[in-house]
Amino acid sequence: MAQGGTIIISPRGAALVRAGHLWVYRSELRKVEAEGGSVVRVRDERGRFIGRALYSDRSEIALRLLTMRDEEIDRAWWQKRLRAAIGRRAGLERACDAFRLVYSEGDLLPSLIVDRYRDLLVMQTLAQGTERLKSLFVELLVEELAPRVIIERNDVRVRELEGLDQRAGVLYGEAMDSIEILQHGVRFRILPLSGQKTGAFLDQRENHLAARRYAHGRALDCFTFNGAFALHMAPACASVLGLDISEEAIEAARANAELNGLRNVEFRVANVFDALREFESQGERFDTIVLDPPAFAKNRASVPAAMRGYKEINLRALKLLNVGGVLITCTCSHHMTEHLFLEIIADAAADARRRVQIIEKRTQSSDHPVLVGVPETLYLKCLILRVIE
Amino acid sequence: MAQGGTIIISPRGAALVRAGHLWVYRSELRKVEAEGGSVVRVRDERGRFIGRALYSDRSEIALRLLTMRDEEIDRAWWQKRLRAAIGRRAGLERACDAFRLVYSEGDLLPSLIVDRYRDLLVMQTLAQGTERLKSLFVELLVEELAPRVIIERNDVRVRELEGLDQRAGVLYGEAMDSIEILQHGVRFRILPLSGQKTGAFLDQRENHLAARRYAHGRALDCFTFNGAFALHMAPACASVLGLDISEEAIEAARANAELNGLRNVEFRVANVFDALREFESQGERFDTIVLDPPAFAKNRASVPAAMRGYKEINLRALKLLNVGGVLITCTCSHHMTEHLFLEIIADAAADARRRVQIIEKRTQSSDHPVLVGVPETLYLKCLILRVIE
Repeated sequence: MAQGGTIIISPRGAALVRAGHLWVYRSELRKVEAEGGSVVRVRDERGRFIGRALYSDRSEIALRLLTMRDEEIDRAWWQKRLRAAIGRRAGLERACDAFRLVYSEGDLLPSLIVDRYRDLLVMQTLAQGTERLKSLFVELLVEELAPRVIIERNDVRVRELEGLDQRAGVLYGEAMDSIEILQHGVRFRILPLSGQKTGAFLDQRENHLAARRYAHGRALDCFTFNGAFALHMAPACASVLGLDISEEAIEAARANAELNGLRNVEFRVANVFDALREFESQGERFDTIVLDPPAFAKNRASVPAAMRGYKEINLRALKLLNVGGVLITCTCSHHMTEHLFLEIIADAAADARRRVQIIEKRTQSSDHPVLVGVPETLYLKCLILRVIE
Repeated sequence: MAQGGTIIISPRGAALVRAGHLWVYRSELRKVEAEGGSVVRVRDERGRFIGRALYSDRSEIALRLLTMRDEEIDRAWWQKRLRAAIGRRAGLERACDAFRLVYSEGDLLPSLIVDRYRDLLVMQTLAQGTERLKSLFVELLVEELAPRVIIERNDVRVRELEGLDQRAGVLYGEAMDSIEILQHGVRFRILPLSGQKTGAFLDQRENHLAARRYAHGRALDCFTFNGAFALHMAPACASVLGLDISEEAIEAARANAELNGLRNVEFRVANVFDALREFESQGERFDTIVLDPPAFAKNRASVPAAMRGYKEINLRALKLLNVGGVLITCTCSHHMTEHLFLEIIADAAADARRRVQIIEKRTQSSDHPVLVGVPETLYLKCLILRVIE
C-alpha cells in the first residue's frame, strides 16, 4: 500500500479536522510531499501529528481523513473498518436483501461505497485513494461476505473531479443481467450493470415503509422511477398512479408491479409539472401524494431555481389533496437544508390555503448513516405531512 | 358565546397570518373593540377580513387565530374541530391508553390541551379565550368520549401571562387518587391531580419505543422522572440504572418497576452532573445512555447557559459509552433548535474524541403534531446516536 508521504496543512485546516470534519480542502494545504492516491501523514505547521488521510492531487477535497491516531493503514486496518461497517448492518438482511453496506464518510471509509443486492455487491470508489485500493477491497469483501459477484458502478460524474474515468464492469465473478430483490415484502427486478445509479434507490428504503403506514385511498406517486413508493403503498390504497418522464423507468415500474401481482397500480409516462397542473384544472383529488424528485439543487448556485421548483410541485400537490390527505415530500439535495425545505412547504401551504401538520421528519435510511461533524453526509430529507384543513 | 368584537391589525400582523402563523402579537394591534377572552373578527387597516380569533387583553400573544374563513364560531364549530383532533388519533388506543387528544395550535385549537389517561381526561386552558369556554369543552368532551372524569391541570406558569390563576381540580365526575396506564406494554401508575405536569411525559412516548429498539447491555437513564425510558429499555438490556434528583420521582419510578416485575432496573437519587463526573473518574462504562433533561433554555436569553449545560452532559455521556454504544439525547427547549443542538453534539463528540453516527433524528410524539408555519409547535428534539470509534 502506498504510504509514507507527508502533507502539512494550515491552522484552519487543522482546526476543522480537530472539530470532527474528515475533509481538508486544497486551499488549506501548505506543503505536499506525496503522490495522488496515496495514504499520507498529515501534520500542522508546527509539525504536530493530525492524522492519516487519503490524498488526491486533483479534487478540491485534497485530504480525506482516515484516523487521528498514529497507526499503520495496512490490510488489517481496512479489514477492521470494513468489518465494523458490515457489523452495524447485522440483522437488516432479515427484512430486505438489498441495502448499503458501506456509506463512505458516514462509515469512516471516505469515498468508498458498497451496496449489497443479495449475493451481488456493487462498489464505487469515488476518489483517487480508494480507486487505487480497489483490488484490496475486492479481496476483503470476498473474504468477509463470499459474494457471487462484485461489480463496480464507477460511471458517476463526481469521479471527474478526481481525474478518474467513468466505468462500469465486473471486478469478481460473473455478472447476471438482472437480479430480483425482496424489500420488506415487495419484489423488484434490478439491472446491476445497465440500470440507473446502483440499481435502486436504497436510501429511500425506510421511507417507502413509512409511506405505507400513512398511505390510503387514491394515491399519486410522482417521479416514481422503478415504482418503489407506489408498490409499497399499493396494498394500503384503493389505487395508485405512478408518473415518470422516463419511458424506461415506467417500463421497469410496470414489470415490478406485475412481479408483485398488483392490479391496483397504474404507471404513466408524464412530465410531473404538467400532470399536476392538468389534475388541478380537471378538479381531480387524491388522498396520498408522493413527491420524490431528482435533486433540483446540484450546487449552491442552483438553490434559488430549485426552491421555485420545489415550491411549485408542493403547492400543486397540497391543492390536490383531500382533507385528511397525506403528502410525502422529499428533497435529495444536500444544499436544500431541512430548515429551508420546511420554509418552502410553509410558503406552499399558505398559498394553497391549506393547514398542514408534520407527521414525521425523516432522512435517508439508517444504512446511509450521517456522521456527526460532517454535515455533507446528510442529503435526503423526507417530510410526511397531513392536510387537516 | 362572546362574539362580535373587532380588532384591526397592522400590515405586518396581517402578512404573518396570511403566511400561515396563528399568532398576532400585541404590538401589531391597531384598534381594539373587544373584551379579553372573547372571539373577535380580525381585519386589516383597509377593513379587509383576516379571520376570527381568540383575544387576550393581557398576553403578548394578543390574538390566536381560529379560522381565516368568515364563519360563525359556535358550539357546532368547536365540536367539529374537537372531533377532527380526536379522529386523527384513531387507532392509537390499541397500543397505549394515555396520549394527547388535543395539542393546542398543532390541532388548530389554540391554547387548549386535552390528554387522555384511559377514562380520565386532563384539560388545560392556557389563554383567556379557552379559559372562558371551559364548560363548553367539558360538555363536548363528555358527548364525544363519555369519560368517567375530567380534571383541569391549570397549575402552570404560562397562565400568569394571561392574568389567569393557578388551579387544579375536578371539572366532571369524581377523580381517582391514582390511575394505572399501559403504554406499549409497560405499566405506569399516574397521580392525576398531584403528579408533575399532567402526570407523565406523553410527548416522549414514541421516543421511549425507539429507545427500546437500540438499547442494549448496561444502560443509564439520566433525569429518569417516573422511569419511563428505563422501564421501556429494561427488557432489551442486561441492567438499567435510572437517576433523578427528585426523591419523589425516584419513589414513583421504583413503584413502576415493581408494577412491571422488572428486576434488572435500579433507581437512585442523584444530581446527574455529579454522577456523570463520578462514573468517569471511576472508569465506569455503559452501552446505552439516555439524557432527557428538563428544559435548560426556558427563553432566548438563557440559550448560552443552556448550551454549556447540554454540552457538558453530552460530552460526559459520550466519554462513558463503549464503542457500539448508543446515546439517546433530548432537548425540550423550543429555543434550542435541532441545528444548534447538533452543533453542540458535534462539539462534544470532538472534545470526547469519539466518532458518532446519527441513527435517528426524532421529535415529540405524533399526538403532539407540529403545525407547518407555526415553528413554536415544535419543541422536543430527540437524537439517537451511535458511537463508532
